[in-house]
Amino acid sequence: MKKLINDPDNVVREELEGVALAHSDLVKVVLEPFYVVRADAPVEGKVGIVSGGGSGHEPMHGGFVGMGMLDAACPGEVFTSPTPDQMFEATKAVNGGKGVLHIVKNYTGDVMNFEMAAELADGEGIEVEAVVIDDDVAVEDSLYTAGRRGVGATVLAEKICGAAAERGDDLAKVAEICRKVNDNAASMGMALTSCTVPSAGEPTFELGENEMEIGIGIHGEPGRKRMELKPADEITEMLLDPILEDLELSEGDEVLAFVNSMGGTPDIELYIIYRRLAQLLEEKGISITRNLIGAYITSLEMQGASITLLKLDDELTELWDAPVHTIAMRKGI
Amino acid sequence: MKKLINDPDNVVREELEGVALAHSDLVKVVLEPFYVVRADAPVEGKVGIVSGGGSGHEPMHGGFVGMGMLDAACPGEVFTSPTPDQMFEATKAVNGGKGVLHIVKNYTGDVMNFEMAAELADGEGIEVEAVVIDDDVAVEDSLYTAGRRGVGATVLAEKICGAAAERGDDLAKVAEICRKVNDNAASMGMALTSCTVPSAGEPTFELGENEMEIGIGIHGEPGRKRMELKPADEITEMLLDPILEDLELSEGDEVLAFVNSMGGTPDIELYIIYRRLAQLLEEKGISITRNLIGAYITSLEMQGASITLLKLDDELTELWDAPVHTIAMRKGI
Repeated sequence: MKKLINDPDNVVREELEGVALAHSDLVKVVLEPFYVVRADAPVEGKVGIVSGGGSGHEPMHGGFVGMGMLDAACPGEVFTSPTPDQMFEATKAVNGGKGVLHIVKNYTGDVMNFEMAAELADGEGIEVEAVVIDDDVAVEDSLYTAGRRGVGATVLAEKICGAAAERGDDLAKVAEICRKVNDNAASMGMALTSCTVPSAGEPTFELGENEMEIGIGIHGEPGRKRMELKPADEITEMLLDPILEDLELSEGDEVLAFVNSMGGTPDIELYIIYRRLAQLLEEKGISITRNLIGAYITSLEMQGASITLLKLDDELTELWDAPVHTIAMRKGI
Repeated sequence: MKKLINDPDNVVREELEGVALAHSDLVKVVLEPFYVVRADAPVEGKVGIVSGGGSGHEPMHGGFVGMGMLDAACPGEVFTSPTPDQMFEATKAVNGGKGVLHIVKNYTGDVMNFEMAAELADGEGIEVEAVVIDDDVAVEDSLYTAGRRGVGATVLAEKICGAAAERGDDLAKVAEICRKVNDNAASMGMALTSCTVPSAGEPTFELGENEMEIGIGIHGEPGRKRMELKPADEITEMLLDPILEDLELSEGDEVLAFVNSMGGTPDIELYIIYRRLAQLLEEKGISITRNLIGAYITSLEMQGASITLLKLDDELTELWDAPVHTIAMRKGI
């Protein structure tokens, strides 16, 4: 295993210590139990937003804590759900009196633990709503999931809900917007290579020299199909088709197009995919009015990419454009 | 070769078409010959700044074109110098009447071609100054270089000179600031894996299962030493020591610390390196007052990292903090 780490058991702790040293202007890092919280939390009179999940998907979620996005993020060990205790402590830390939204990717452990944290918070009189993100159209159930997995739409939901909370929306409204993002977004990913979880020490799966996997999950969970490597233009079409089918987009629709690196994919390749995606959507009369291109929800060093489309309306567009100031996303500040 | 591309010969062209489709609000992409230029170029009364070099180091340089940074970038084919013609056309396109600065990484082809472009520009009455960046302390001469290579300091010089030009400094002053950045910065990198140039189709070099290379160049040029993989804390020290020796920093100095991914290294690992870097500098009484952590000057999908330190004074700090609005760097806008 080739990684720039010390002890595989201390990877997340040492990463968080690094984040604390680098970004104390933006966030406070708590190590017992692990969570990352806005430096100015709790923000009085604002709905708090907490997300979290296994580590290894950076910059998600810790890189999205700050003004206009998350109030706190709970990182588990790599590809391992955080504990209810982490989520409960983070929820208390961001409670500004208007309740707290939990944005939860649909993995069994995350969903269960966020439910327990919400019960604990309820016991202390903190109102919590949870929205489960399940935008991955690749497979219906999966290794760690009942129902569809939560992937790229999580990034978009965190940005958009963060803006809604910032403008003063109440908890019911922020949760409604979160559900709207989830309902109007769909994603699909693929991998050229596996990643290696530090504590495992070897690749999660093996792909042949000339093989790829379409519909892969962000933990290397099996996708739809292993097949021979194809040109980028064909791969783009293979990822886009199931998304279009799911969203039932029609001519004249406006979308946010998000091309995401799984971690180890160079920018050059992301733009080659974006190019074909833009051409294909234009042929169908669908306008990309906003885009996001880069490594935002990753699987450690995995090579591969995912596409997420979010159908936009005026409200979602305005919230997407609102200022944000986090480690990994910054606009208007 | 596993890459998300179509034809290896069209990689840069298709990437640039993707950039044009995605970012027409920020940049204009010219395809004959290749260059990326600010959408509002030329900016009248402002010094223009042009950089460029082989592709494969994205987001450098095209990702840094925009308000507060570069006016234009000339991408060559992957790891291949752009032509004098590209540089000349870009220079003309950004000439706002106050002259043009060329920021040139020290590689023989880049230096030679930028010199020819400056002569061509001179023939048309455009004043050009060139500053050659050579911050890599790993080796004195290298595969493609007489003298030290230009690496991470290029990113910092482009940001800082961009701010100086934006506030109205004249060409001599912007060039002086560029030389000051270069004189006060030093870098060193390392690799865990090679990258694969698309047109070559196979890895540039081979590293054993448990081997790393210290002092590697951004094209996979040989570094100082191949050795057994060490823990991240030791690697950080091996990268930092030659930098400190070169910069002759002393207690009380302030620095910008830049931890850069070679392309395929996850954020987690960059923060583990940053953590140790911050500890080591603190022990020496050197303050990190600004930092930059992420993939800014890459070698395609290479796994590895580099450290750059820039000794700061009030002027450099103020210029670093100034607003910037590019694809890959954004602040205050």
